[in-house]
Amino acid sequence: MRATTKVAIIGAGPAGLLLGHLLRAEGIDCLILERQTRAHVERRIRAGVLETVTTDLLHRLGIDAGLNAHGLKEEGFNLADGDRIIRIDLARLIGRHVTVYGQTEVTRDLIEAAPARGLDIVFEAKDVALHDIGASRARVTFGKDGRDHYVEADFIAGCDGFHGVTRRAIPAEVQRDYVHEYPFGWLGILADVPPCHPELIYARTPAGFALASMRSPTRSRYYIQVPRDERVENWPEARLWDELARRFDPLSAHGVTRGSALEMSIAPLRSFVSEPMGHGRLFLAGDAAHIVPPTGAKGLNLAASDVAYLSDALIGYYRRSDETGLRNYAAKAVARVWKAERFSWYLTKLMHHFPEDGAFAHHMQSSELDYVAQSEAMQTAIAENYVGLPL
Amino acid sequence: MRATTKVAIIGAGPAGLLLGHLLRAEGIDCLILERQTRAHVERRIRAGVLETVTTDLLHRLGIDAGLNAHGLKEEGFNLADGDRIIRIDLARLIGRHVTVYGQTEVTRDLIEAAPARGLDIVFEAKDVALHDIGASRARVTFGKDGRDHYVEADFIAGCDGFHGVTRRAIPAEVQRDYVHEYPFGWLGILADVPPCHPELIYARTPAGFALASMRSPTRSRYYIQVPRDERVENWPEARLWDELARRFDPLSAHGVTRGSALEMSIAPLRSFVSEPMGHGRLFLAGDAAHIVPPTGAKGLNLAASDVAYLSDALIGYYRRSDETGLRNYAAKAVARVWKAERFSWYLTKLMHHFPEDGAFAHHMQSSELDYVAQSEAMQTAIAENYVGLPL
Repeated sequence: MRATTKVAIIGAGPAGLLLGHLLRAEGIDCLILERQTRAHVERRIRAGVLETVTTDLLHRLGIDAGLNAHGLKEEGFNLADGDRIIRIDLARLIGRHVTVYGQTEVTRDLIEAAPARGLDIVFEAKDVALHDIGASRARVTFGKDGRDHYVEADFIAGCDGFHGVTRRAIPAEVQRDYVHEYPFGWLGILADVPPCHPELIYARTPAGFALASMRSPTRSRYYIQVPRDERVENWPEARLWDELARRFDPLSAHGVTRGSALEMSIAPLRSFVSEPMGHGRLFLAGDAAHIVPPTGAKGLNLAASDVAYLSDALIGYYRRSDETGLRNYAAKAVARVWKAERFSWYLTKLMHHFPEDGAFAHHMQSSELDYVAQSEAMQTAIAENYVGLPL
Repeated sequence: MRATTKVAIIGAGPAGLLLGHLLRAEGIDCLILERQTRAHVERRIRAGVLETVTTDLLHRLGIDAGLNAHGLKEEGFNLADGDRIIRIDLARLIGRHVTVYGQTEVTRDLIEAAPARGLDIVFEAKDVALHDIGASRARVTFGKDGRDHYVEADFIAGCDGFHGVTRRAIPAEVQRDYVHEYPFGWLGILADVPPCHPELIYARTPAGFALASMRSPTRSRYYIQVPRDERVENWPEARLWDELARRFDPLSAHGVTRGSALEMSIAPLRSFVSEPMGHGRLFLAGDAAHIVPPTGAKGLNLAASDVAYLSDALIGYYRRSDETGLRNYAAKAVARVWKAERFSWYLTKLMHHFPEDGAFAHHMQSSELDYVAQSEAMQTAIAENYVGLPL
């Protein structure tokens, strides 16, 4: 195993894979260390709505055959309040769109393209630990196949997600975490059935929030709001389909089609930002530094924008000996992160049932939706956030 | 004293006075009963930013000499965050403006114009009580000059403010109140000094919210956020001017000019809506039915829009025997009220320091202001709410 590289990337999720490919496209040596097996990584069910910032990176890399063949161009999405649907017409309002293409597929495409592009990924790298991130060369130690390894690097990219180790390498005295926990989670189901509606529907219902989404014309992804401590065992598939039918049948042309679950799980909703997004030789990107609630589909896209900034900074350093990008990375990335945190928080607050809310707060939600329904300016504000603010 | 009238109006604030004049302009008999003395009513210090919906009514009545001579056309206002100012350019964004002209002056103009237009106002009408609002004729009893009086009326307009009696005449079983109390109040000062800035500045500062406002080029109105239980006795004028200088000197061209206070007071912030806004022969308008926090200056303007709807409805009834307007009044008025409640609540939440907020919530405020600063769409959304949504 190699003992040196220019950039050691921790984590083979979308952030790490995109970064690795972008560096390799410039001939910059790098190495990805991933704790899980390849099969595990490729099987993870995650987001599915891509902003232009994300699809642009895939096109730039030319790793876009799957995206071009199967990505669904979505020119609008819907906010429902009771039985009223407010369509946010992205194409008309701002001349832009988003693309439905699963994060699972993005990850698989990026992993498949790695060998031909000289991007090394070490799967099942155990007990990754960072050393000397304040020194002139950093070092990463890990276990693989029962043996201890290390790699020296100019820089470390922490792309190992919320539960990863890299964020914890930043000294506590310079780090500050901002956290907001929501009193609910999303129970999700993935099934090979046609979606109930050609566009996403974010629904505020008396029983709580629900989302009708899709990964393809034959694969649906639905979510409903559940209490934070709810257990998936309490939700036999039939119960969930009943609940989804109750919430979406009145809103969609042909109703909810049932099918057997490919996956069901509950994820708690959380807003989280850790600052700074870099320290010494370490730079964080994606969920390692921040979490958004899934409302508005910002998580994967924020990882992509972090990586857009970070790859530019590293390319500037190696190609033009320009350290400016690296010096500015943390501040630049986190500024965009906070804007997306705000939008995700706004949309979450607008559409969910908060158990602690009284009648006045409920009316604020419906009044906001009344206002959105009638205001081109407010629809435009929502649209420009939904497709992603400029880099 | 007359024993019958078509419309008995309770309260000689802007809502009651505007309604009385609009009815009299159509030759409809009405009578205003006001608990306070004329001097007291004319001395009350209240709002000062008029939407077009309000100025249009004054122009339509021709009671606009003071407004025309002294009203300040404001084509923009400012949101400050720390030492940054975000100007909301009303003229450029939506081609509209607001007008600075004191509620005190509006009230005085309307009272002065009353006798010549046959609008009777009974001041110092004590112990007003409503009877038979569910019958074919309603009755109001009151005391005046030590004697008991009554007046029969087709309709009663409840324009007697939050602490008034009319709302309480609606049976409890049909009435629902929506209340949100904020954990702070505004300490205000009025002084004959030039304002620190030609346009209003709503300021988010580390010490809390502050507002630099004016009533004329020589009369300033300032406010600072204080704890809800704060007492005005704790604020000698010098202390307040020091605090205002600290907050506004960095934001304004020539700083805060000090002067002796014409008035100082603390008002708690509250959101309140009582539904329905009418029952039987009674219709509520203005603060009798709803309160907004003063952020965004919606209170007086909502009174004016209620009265625009209610006067139209009553005129339709008397001129064309059309009851539709009266039947629809409560629903129509409250729909607009909820939109203004939402905007006042939004602007209050955006700009104030909430003691219970953690670091994440603080960042949401500054992120929202970052977003407002860069987004034409969001500035437009704020602008269209600030000048008043269409009737």
